[in-house]
Order: sequence, then C-alpha cells, then structure tokens
Amino acid sequence: MSQQRTLRLSSQLHTSTVYVLGTEISLDIRGSAPKDATSFNVRGTPGVDIYIVHNPQVAKVPTCVPRWPLDDEVEVMVTMKAPSKDINDHKVRISYYGQDGGTAIHSTMLYLTCIDVSLDADTTRSGVVQRGTTDKKEWIWGPDGQGAILLVNCDRDDPKSSEMDNIHEVRFQRLDDPSLGLLLYSDLRDMSCMILRTQGPDAIFDDHKLVLHVSVSDADKVGVFHARGDDVLQQYEHVLGSHELSYVVEHASGREEDTFYVEGLAFPDADFSGLVSFHVTLLDTPTESLPETPIFTDTVVFRVAPWIMTPNTQRPLEVFVCSLSDNADVVEAMSELAQKAHCKLTICPEVENRGDRWIQDEMELGYVQAPHKTFPVVFDSPRDRELQDFPFKSILGPDFGYVTQEPFNEIVSSLDSFGNLEVSPPVTVRGKAYPLGRILIGSSFPRVGGRRMTKAVRDFLYAQKVQPPVELYVDWLCVGHVDEFLSFVPALGRQGFRLLLASPRACYKLLTEKQEEGYGDARLFEGLETVPTTTIDEILANESLRRDNDYVQSCIDWNRDILKRELGLSERDILDLPQLFSVLDEEASAFFPDMVNMIVLGKHLGIPKPFGPIIDGRCCLEENVRSLLEPLGLTCTFVDDFFSYHALLGEIHCGTNVRRKPFSFKWWNMIP
Amino acid sequence: MSQQRTLRLSSQLHTSTVYVLGTEISLDIRGSAPKDATSFNVRGTPGVDIYIVHNPQVAKVPTCVPRWPLDDEVEVMVTMKAPSKDINDHKVRISYYGQDGGTAIHSTMLYLTCIDVSLDADTTRSGVVQRGTTDKKEWIWGPDGQGAILLVNCDRDDPKSSEMDNIHEVRFQRLDDPSLGLLLYSDLRDMSCMILRTQGPDAIFDDHKLVLHVSVSDADKVGVFHARGDDVLQQYEHVLGSHELSYVVEHASGREEDTFYVEGLAFPDADFSGLVSFHVTLLDTPTESLPETPIFTDTVVFRVAPWIMTPNTQRPLEVFVCSLSDNADVVEAMSELAQKAHCKLTICPEVENRGDRWIQDEMELGYVQAPHKTFPVVFDSPRDRELQDFPFKSILGPDFGYVTQEPFNEIVSSLDSFGNLEVSPPVTVRGKAYPLGRILIGSSFPRVGGRRMTKAVRDFLYAQKVQPPVELYVDWLCVGHVDEFLSFVPALGRQGFRLLLASPRACYKLLTEKQEEGYGDARLFEGLETVPTTTIDEILANESLRRDNDYVQSCIDWNRDILKRELGLSERDILDLPQLFSVLDEEASAFFPDMVNMIVLGKHLGIPKPFGPIIDGRCCLEENVRSLLEPLGLTCTFVDDFFSYHALLGEIHCGTNVRRKPFSFKWWNMIP
Repeated sequence: MSQQRTLRLSSQLHTSTVYVLGTEISLDIRGSAPKDATSFNVRGTPGVDIYIVHNPQVAKVPTCVPRWPLDDEVEVMVTMKAPSKDINDHKVRISYYGQDGGTAIHSTMLYLTCIDVSLDADTTRSGVVQRGTTDKKEWIWGPDGQGAILLVNCDRDDPKSSEMDNIHEVRFQRLDDPSLGLLLYSDLRDMSCMILRTQGPDAIFDDHKLVLHVSVSDADKVGVFHARGDDVLQQYEHVLGSHELSYVVEHASGREEDTFYVEGLAFPDADFSGLVSFHVTLLDTPTESLPETPIFTDTVVFRVAPWIMTPNTQRPLEVFVCSLSDNADVVEAMSELAQKAHCKLTICPEVENRGDRWIQDEMELGYVQAPHKTFPVVFDSPRDRELQDFPFKSILGPDFGYVTQEPFNEIVSSLDSFGNLEVSPPVTVRGKAYPLGRILIGSSFPRVGGRRMTKAVRDFLYAQKVQPPVELYVDWLCVGHVDEFLSFVPALGRQGFRLLLASPRACYKLLTEKQEEGYGDARLFEGLETVPTTTIDEILANESLRRDNDYVQSCIDWNRDILKRELGLSERDILDLPQLFSVLDEEASAFFPDMVNMIVLGKHLGIPKPFGPIIDGRCCLEENVRSLLEPLGLTCTFVDDFFSYHALLGEIHCGTNVRRKPFSFKWWNMIP
Repeated sequence: MSQQRTLRLSSQLHTSTVYVLGTEISLDIRGSAPKDATSFNVRGTPGVDIYIVHNPQVAKVPTCVPRWPLDDEVEVMVTMKAPSKDINDHKVRISYYGQDGGTAIHSTMLYLTCIDVSLDADTTRSGVVQRGTTDKKEWIWGPDGQGAILLVNCDRDDPKSSEMDNIHEVRFQRLDDPSLGLLLYSDLRDMSCMILRTQGPDAIFDDHKLVLHVSVSDADKVGVFHARGDDVLQQYEHVLGSHELSYVVEHASGREEDTFYVEGLAFPDADFSGLVSFHVTLLDTPTESLPETPIFTDTVVFRVAPWIMTPNTQRPLEVFVCSLSDNADVVEAMSELAQKAHCKLTICPEVENRGDRWIQDEMELGYVQAPHKTFPVVFDSPRDRELQDFPFKSILGPDFGYVTQEPFNEIVSSLDSFGNLEVSPPVTVRGKAYPLGRILIGSSFPRVGGRRMTKAVRDFLYAQKVQPPVELYVDWLCVGHVDEFLSFVPALGRQGFRLLLASPRACYKLLTEKQEEGYGDARLFEGLETVPTTTIDEILANESLRRDNDYVQSCIDWNRDILKRELGLSERDILDLPQLFSVLDEEASAFFPDMVNMIVLGKHLGIPKPFGPIIDGRCCLEENVRSLLEPLGLTCTFVDDFFSYHALLGEIHCGTNVRRKPFSFKWWNMIP
C-alpha cells in the first residue's frame, strides 16, 4: 500500500511541497475552501496524475474536468511518475465555485517537486542490492520469500588484532578518530550493503534533510558504516549502533546514492528474533526557528543469519586432531584418513592443547551465510578445559568467525561439551521438511535432578530456528554425550543416510551366534597389554553385564523411538552396531571401544578398533560392522585408540573435529 | 501421531511390559528369532490388537493367522484399548518357523499390562480440564485453535501481605515449611488446573514411577503446586519452579487423578514467548542396582496470558482522580461525570498522591484473562514521581494484579509516562483484524537525538502480541504524550468509534469564519483571573503563532497519516477538534486547554474547558466541538481545569485514569 500524506493547502498563499515517488498526496480540499464554495475542480500539469476518491470508487480526473461537490465523501489524491528537473516544476490548480457555478470564486495553486528517496538492500537475496518494488518492511521465509540478510561480523580480518571485527565499533568510539583507519576492505565484504537512493533537484535539500535511524530495541544488534567519498579506507564512518540511533545523511550535489555497510553484532537468541529494521525519513526544515517535520519514511528489514551446523553427510574440508605424547598412532591414522578423503588435516599441538585431547567437546564448527558471503564460524563450548583458548586464538581469523555463550548463574556440566551437540542430515517428517537437518542434543530428561545442558547454550541453539533441536536422553551415560550412542553415515537410497546406533542387543545376538558356531572360547581384548582378556562364553554367562546392557539397550531404545518420531525415520533407516556397555554407580560407559563414536569423512570412516574376539584371524565385531557398512559404499578403517582415548572415556569422534562444506541449500529458502 | 516404543523380546525368558493407552509398541520380532527361523506368526488375547506393517501397508492381523516372512520389511505393532484390571492380564505369543514350516521351532510370550497415563489441562479453553484427544504439545491461536492458558499470579490475595502472590514461591523455599500454610484458596483460583490421570493395577507402581518435569528454559516462568490429600489448605506443595525441574508423583492406591495448580510468574517479554511446556514421564524401575528407564512421556503446553489494554470504547467501571488543595472543582466534576456514567469514583488522597496529580501517567489499567478467570492488572510506569507507590500499595490487591518494567541502564523520559500509552478500539486493516485494537505509543522518531520510550517498556508492549503497537511521533511536544493530540470516542456507524485529533487548521478555519461574521473582537480567556485575554483578530494577525501552528499541524498530520494507514481509517473516521498550540524552544504545548485531552466514560465526555471567544453568550470553541460530537450521541461536559491542570502542562485526561470492562472477545481467539 502506498504511503499516503495529508497535505494542507494555504487558503491565502500558494503552497509548495515535495512529492516522493511511489507515495500519494491526499489534498485537503475542504480546508482551503472559501465559505461559500460548494464545488471545486482540480487540474495538474502533465506528469501529475490526479485521482478523485469517491468512496469506494477511484477515478482518474479526465481531461474534460467536471465540477466535484465539496462534501465529506470526496477526496483528492495526487501522484507523479518521475523526479523533477527543477524545484516546483509541476503544478496543480484547485478552483472553487459557489452555488451559482459560473466562474471560480477562488483558486489556489500547489507547486510540486517530485523526488525519489529509497532505502534499498538485497531484499531479493540475489547478492546484489536491487531497487525493490516489494514491501521491504516484511521479511518472508521460503523460496518465494523476500527480505535482506545480515551476517554477524564475528571473524577477525585483521591478523594483527587480538579481537573480533565487531569490536571495531567499540574501538571507533573510544578513539573517536575521524579517519577511522581501522576498517579493512575484507571487513566490508562481510557486511551487507544498504543503499540510500535520492533523485531530484539539489536545491530541495536546502530545506529538507534525510535521517537514517534505528529503534532502541534493534540498535545494539548492528553497526552501520557510511561510505563517504570514494572507495578509500579512511572514509567509512560508523554512523548507527548502540549509542547512535539516528544519523543525518548530508546531501552532496550530483550524488544519487549513499552506500552503507551493515554488520550484525548478535546472533538470534532467546531475546532477539534476528530481525532488525532501518528507516530513512525525509524531513522538511522550513524555517530556522522551528524544528523539522517528517514527510516520508522508507523502511528495510534485515534478518541476522543463523549459525548453521553441518552433518556427517556434508563433504569434509578439514580435520582437527590434538597431538599428545601418547597418541601418535591415532594422529597418523587421522592423517591417512584425511588424505584419502582429500581434506586438510590440522594438528593442534601440545602447546595449544595443553594435554586436552577432546577437541570435539571444546567446539562445534558451523557456518553463516548471506547471499553475498559465506564463512565458517566456530561455536566455542562453555566447557573450558585446557583447550579453552584454542577456538579464539587459533580458529578465529580472517573469514573464520567465532561465537560463544556465557552461562549466567548456571553450572556447566559434561552435557555442555559439544560431543553432546550433533546434527542430523536433512529429513522430512510427516510432510514437514528440515532441509538443513535437526540439531540433536542430550538432556538429563527424565532423570530427577540430573545434569543438563545450560540454558545459555540451549536457548542459543533453539533461537537459530533453521535446525530445530531434538532433545535426547543422555544422562544415563557417565560422560553423557549423544555421540556415545549415535552417528550418521552417508548412504545411497532411502534418505541418503543411515542412522547408526550402538546396540548391546545386536552384540549379544552376534556373540551368541559365534558361541553356537563353537567359538565360545574366542577372546576379547587380545593383544592389549595390561588388559585382561575375556571369552565369549564368559561374557554371555555374566548375568550382571547382561542386566547392565538390557538397561543400556532400553535407554538407547528410548532415544531410538524419539529419533524415529522426530526425524521421520523407519527401522530401515537405522543400523545397529554391536556394542557393549558397563554400568558403574548408575553410569554407563563403553565396555570395549565404542565403534559408533567414529569420524565420518565422506565414504571414509575412522572407527575405534573394538578388540573383539578373533575368529579365523579376524575380529568378529569388525567383520560384523563391515558387513553392515561396506554394502553402502563405505570403507571402514579401524583405529586403535584403546589407551589414548577409550581408556579415558572417549574415542575417535571425541578426539577429532571436522569442518565441512556448507549446505548448497540456502537457509532462507526453508520455512521454519 | 501415536508415540511408538520399540520393545525387545527376551529370546530365553518370557517378557513382561507396560503398555500405555494411545501408544504403539513396535515388537522387535527379529531380535528374538532363533537362527534358523524364516517366518513367524503372532497372536494376542482379546483386547490386544496386532498390526503388521509391510511398508507402506498396514494390516490388522486376521483371526486366521498366516505366517509372515521374517525379513526387514515386516514390522509388528501392538495396541490395546482399555486399562488392565490385573498385572500381565493380556498376552501376545510369537511363534517362529523354520524353512520347512510345519510346527514352530520356538515361541516366546509377551505379557502386557495396559495402563492409562495422561497429563491434561484446559486445552479446549472451556474453563474446565477435559481429557483431550488433540495434540497437547501444540498451542494454536484462533477460534479453531487449542492450547491451555496460564495467568501470571500477580495479584495479592492475602490482604495482610505486603507482597504479590507469586512471591509465595520464594517464601516457601525460604521457610522450607512442610505445612505450607500460606497458600490461600483465592490464590488457587488464579491458577490453572493441570491433572495427571493414571489408571491401571496399583501393583504396576511397585516398579514404575511417574515424574513431572519442566525444561530449564521454562522453569523460572512458572510455579506448580501439587494438591495432596483432600482440599485442605496445608496440603498444597510447591513442586516445580526455578530450582525444581522435576518431581516424582507418588502413587496412592485407588487415586486416579493428581491435581496440580500452575501459576505464571512472568509476562511474555523480549526473551519469553509466553509458552511453557510440562511433561510427565513414566519410568521403569526394574531392579535396585540399576537406574530407571523412560517408557512414555506426555506433554502439555500453556501460554501465559498477555496483559491487555482497554480502549475508550469499553464501558468504564471505575474512575481515578487525585485530590489536591487546588483541584476541588475538577474532583467534583469527575464525581458527577462518574455518577452519570454509572461507574465508581476512587479519589487518591493527598497523603497517597503527595502532590502528584498526573495519575494517567503513573499507571495503565489493563487486564489478564484465562477461560477460568479474568482480573484487572495495573501496569506501573517507570515514571516514578510522587505517585510512584500508589499502584503497588493501593491498586494491587485481591484479584487486582500488578506489573512493572524496570529499565536497565536507560534514561527514563517523559515518553515513559502512560499518557503516552493508549490503545485504539478494535479495527480491521486491509483484511487483517485487530479485535483488541492496537496499542499507540509516542516515540522520538524521527527527531535526531530525541527522547524515547525505554526499551524495557517498549519490548514488553510488543511482546504481548495481541495489540500490536503503532509508534507515533510525539517528541515535537514539550510533554510528549499521544493523549495531547488524539483520543477515541464511541460512535454509531463506521467502525463504532471516531478518532479525535487536535487541529490548529480547524481552529484557524473556525476563528476566520467568526472574524468574517464580525466577531473579531471576541476574546479568549475571558473570566480567568491573572490571564491576559486576546481577541480573534489578534490571534489571526499573529504570524508567529500561525507559523507555530502550521508546524504543529504538519506534526499531527504525520501522525494522522500513520493512524490512517495502521488502523485502516478513512477521513470520515476522523474528527478535527479546533485547537491551538504554542511553540517555545522547539517544543509545543496547548495554547488554550487541550480539548482532545478529555476523559471518555461511555457517552459522557469530560472535556477541558477551552475558554474560547464568547459569541452570543457561548464559547464558539465549545459550540464547535458540541456540533461535531453531539450528533454522534455523545454528551459534552466542559470542565474548568485551567489553573489546576492546563497551566501545569496537562489536562483532564492526564489527571484521571479509568478502569474499563474487559473485552467480550477472548484474546486467544485472535490470530496475531
């Protein structure tokens, strides 16, 4: 709907005003009418369109002008089609007639100057700012949607700086330096463009001005920079933000576009929907002694891009592993696996990991995306053990962003480690599409008084909206991470993946079969020094272990049922990997290396070597897993992590991290 | 969709389990199959329904049981229809067959006990908790919607207490008093009922338990009380809240219902959508040495009722006015007006108002509503002048709630006074209905560096969702309140109301007419001691005053255009009341008493007496206003507030407050 503006006509003098392209002027015909007038007519110069609104009909004034009755039912609307060349170059004449008709008893003139004012952004999500005809105030999800997108400027483009880019804002204010030499070109490329277009005679800005403004609720979520002059670094001025709610845009003769660069400063969260609106208002500043009055406002709304996780089905780009004095074999195995999968290997040295090998738990690697730019963002867990500085000091960098959540007044537990934060591949659940998958987190539910993920982390994950979380039950585990009993592997057919679940039941079935085949005396843990071996017969005869595993199976089955329901999976989407757990003090942990806690690099799987019973020279657990996974086109590499990870209550997945290719699907094309 | 549960069958022993009414058990047929089995059949006792799912077909097992192939494509589902009388009173037998068919090579038995577990609330919004078949997890707006409703327990039922009711929660914890004698019956009536229904053999609870729980993100927004034993006060125990995320519901023999009372502790706000979910989980507690495992969860979601404002078109119930040494006439006039409008008059005495007469500014009277209960709630402004204690000390009481917003790190300005917070009558805007109207607030926009309403108040108003705010421009006014230039009156026809706007233009038109009629020497301010009079001729000749008023008119017109657009009004919905303003230091205030700043009590209007020019013994301003309003069936009483209010920059509306009848329209029936 066009913006409409009521215009009062002077009854004595002529009136002169600015008309903004795309709006309507509603003329106050009755207000300037002489007392005896009963009808009027109205004519405009070419380029001015005049409409008579006789509720509810609208009629364009014909060339042959009739007289219109001067009553409450008649309204007069004026529109124009192109910016003026000169001040007051268009006119409208209103003539009033008395009861007897004949000649006009009074007439008044309205002088019009048409200008164009438009605040534009990439509302079509094409990567380029286009002059939009759509309603820029609405942000609409989906492939037929509209609305511009902002990135949180959370990377560090200046390699010399020890801070994130969006600290710039603070720095600018502190230094109050008019040269503002700290902004880098690369930093600008992270920001979204917003263009203020103005067209019309220069002289109009002698008594009009343009103000860019933002509401107090939105202001602390953004920074806006004004590109002044030509493209020289020093000329980007910070103009809107926390302490700057409005900014007067100076008019420069001949310049029809002012370019602004907009950065996000906050991700969507419990108290922030992600939407931020900017407005430009044209003010009339008629005389020195009176304040300006508003004439026209244009508004454009941005949504801050959410932080997005990548599932195992996305192509791996970079593998992270910590190097310690005791894990050279695993590092070597990861190096070979990364090479096979054609991805980069980054080894976190002991000086940085300080003895902490659980790099999965310290951080989660995701990304942010706008039509003009995509970059990875590390989410730093509140876990904060020896690796705590690694994400900020070594991952954050040019085009690699950083985000964290500081729990307020809450106890951080093992459930806040990001081995407890995974994401499913894309799924469709009873007709509802989740094209970026769903986040999986482990929760204490339903254990009374159990550990839980902090509200800060949980609220952040929910607020991203594009990968709605599913909460699983993990507090039955000693460590309590979802990656202890589930993983996803890419696979042809079905939905393009399989869910792998650790399965005591499958393990008992396998071992019973082997016993029946006469291998009851085959031994687990053979070849491991200092670890006592045990036979299949002994395992199967251990009633206490069986009870523990029936219990574990029921906990995993509870999660299986949730996963089937919330991810829309059927039994055929799930593969059960043989696994035993032991339960001590009501807390479960893997009895032999937890095979589902694997690293998935495309088709290449790095699986904890289970040290199962050797039958005909082969580990029957490995054979079973191969028989399940290799038909899907996957290759299994079993990696000995027994003493370096398993014995410390983690495995390969816990000890690695993977940066993956962002989805080709754009998040704004989904409907949450 | 039914909750589905995977059940593992023992291959050696028989299996016994609980079935929860309304769910499906998915039998792991293959897991307990002997190695050589190739097919199976499955039969149940009467009362057990068995379905074979052969993707995607579902078939009920016919009485004449066939053999089913033991392959991945076949799943077996079990359901039941009524709670069991005894433990294990229903059975399912699974028989396995080898390649040659003939007789079964193995069979296993599943014993079933059917119980009913349901967590119910008033999801149909009928005022009564009904056992729902709808999805209780979804809260849906609108007349066809569903979902239970909570009230913020923000009144003070205990007249002896100096605190609000929901402080009880803290008190309970502090005292840790098992008798909990502080809860009042009247307090319970503010709360929403939530009923946990369980049916089935008592003995099932020997090795099962029920846990009521809430997520950490929701917990601090609610308090839940368990009604224990019969309806004696002492037996309501606080069981869920900030520090209590879960609660074990003890089973009592023969009791099929546990009643809980739920109170809201927080209104919707920027960081709280208003939705809170409660869950009940059935846990299996099989042996002493192992922890429980979950079997079934039921969830019910509540929405906290928003705070709702009442427009002038709602029937007045109670008028508030302050009594001071200098305003006896106004108090007397309000008393007469209240009597005519059949509403109560409450006079705030000087000991409570401490010289502060602006009772409109200190508070806004709204209400909260649930199907079971409605009560008024005062929103206490952060203005906090001498009246600051009045809302908490004198308005808060039994069934009269209280809410406030504490601005954090913000300057409170005159724009935070609630003369700057009004609400329109119900409107429809381009097809979109606002059946509770829209909140109107004044903002500094677009003045550079102007005053503004605090984020705390603004965010709260937006978060209520049911009366989406419209922001007007008020910073051109010295005081800066929307009630300085607009009001609404009930009126037949059109949308049932008219918007009244202060209009310098209408005033100049009227005075010019009077001058033309020969009354140019008629005087304003006659009869006011110490106020110099001025003639119509002098007013019309004062070019500075005319410029000021052209400016004021353009500010009001800007708001007129916003109001037309955002409330879907046409010119015929608006009446212009003649009014002049004067501008000093860029700030406008009324030149003579501001007539639009009136009190509206049904058809009875209490209008500031303008002291306009007397023509033929009558004030021509009053006459003009009467001619506009009386045809609508309204009666105008002009009240002299010149020295007691007008001279202090306020008028009748600023000096009064009105509690009005809640809307008959229920807020949950709208679609925001």
